[in-house]
Amino acid sequence: MEKHTKETCAKSKLAIRDTLDVVGGKWKLVLVSVLRSGKKGFNELSREAGISPRILSKELQELEMNGLVSRQVCNTKPVTVQYELTDYSQTLNDVLKAMEKWGNQHRQKLY
Amino acid sequence: MEKHTKETCAKSKLAIRDTLDVVGGKWKLVLVSVLRSGKKGFNELSREAGISPRILSKELQELEMNGLVSRQVCNTKPVTVQYELTDYSQTLNDVLKAMEKWGNQHRQKLY
Repeated sequence: MEKHTKETCAKSKLAIRDTLDVVGGKWKLVLVSVLRSGKKGFNELSREAGISPRILSKELQELEMNGLVSRQVCNTKPVTVQYELTDYSQTLNDVLKAMEKWGNQHRQKLY
Repeated sequence: MEKHTKETCAKSKLAIRDTLDVVGGKWKLVLVSVLRSGKKGFNELSREAGISPRILSKELQELEMNGLVSRQVCNTKPVTVQYELTDYSQTLNDVLKAMEKWGNQHRQKLY
């Protein structure tokens, strides 16, 4: 990160807050990491990520709004919906990688 | 990140979830980024980060519990309390850097 001045600090605080606004919260990055293995239906996602349908629906909508996940309605009977990561979501790779690394080292520190 | 197999996926999902358990939520990383400019009192932190005292107190306690922030009671009248990042919190630098970078590029994408 840049040298700390009041200005660069405010700027980096803002950028971090922007990121947290989009992918913060308990579930968004978990969902992105679950979807990395390929597109998934709603129930499958709910099961794999361990999220209740009500919350999952809201989280997916927000991810879609921010261009990170795309939603595809399939013409089946009954209609099914599949969720998939967008190309843009790949820009999150460095964030996910850093978090994965940190999670691993923190776990080692604890046990 | 490693190649996707069911096993490496589960492991990386777990590591990301661990990280989110410790520093996820709306405020933790914002607090860490605010404290990067030096130790701060409770009211100062509340003001700078824009967090209500009730929530700030809870967030600081959790950060302290995880060894990321230290709390120092100063023998003044009235007693004041200062919060400071620990050395261990520096392990979060890569996460913060990645989030800062992403926040900046996402903002450019939007405007």
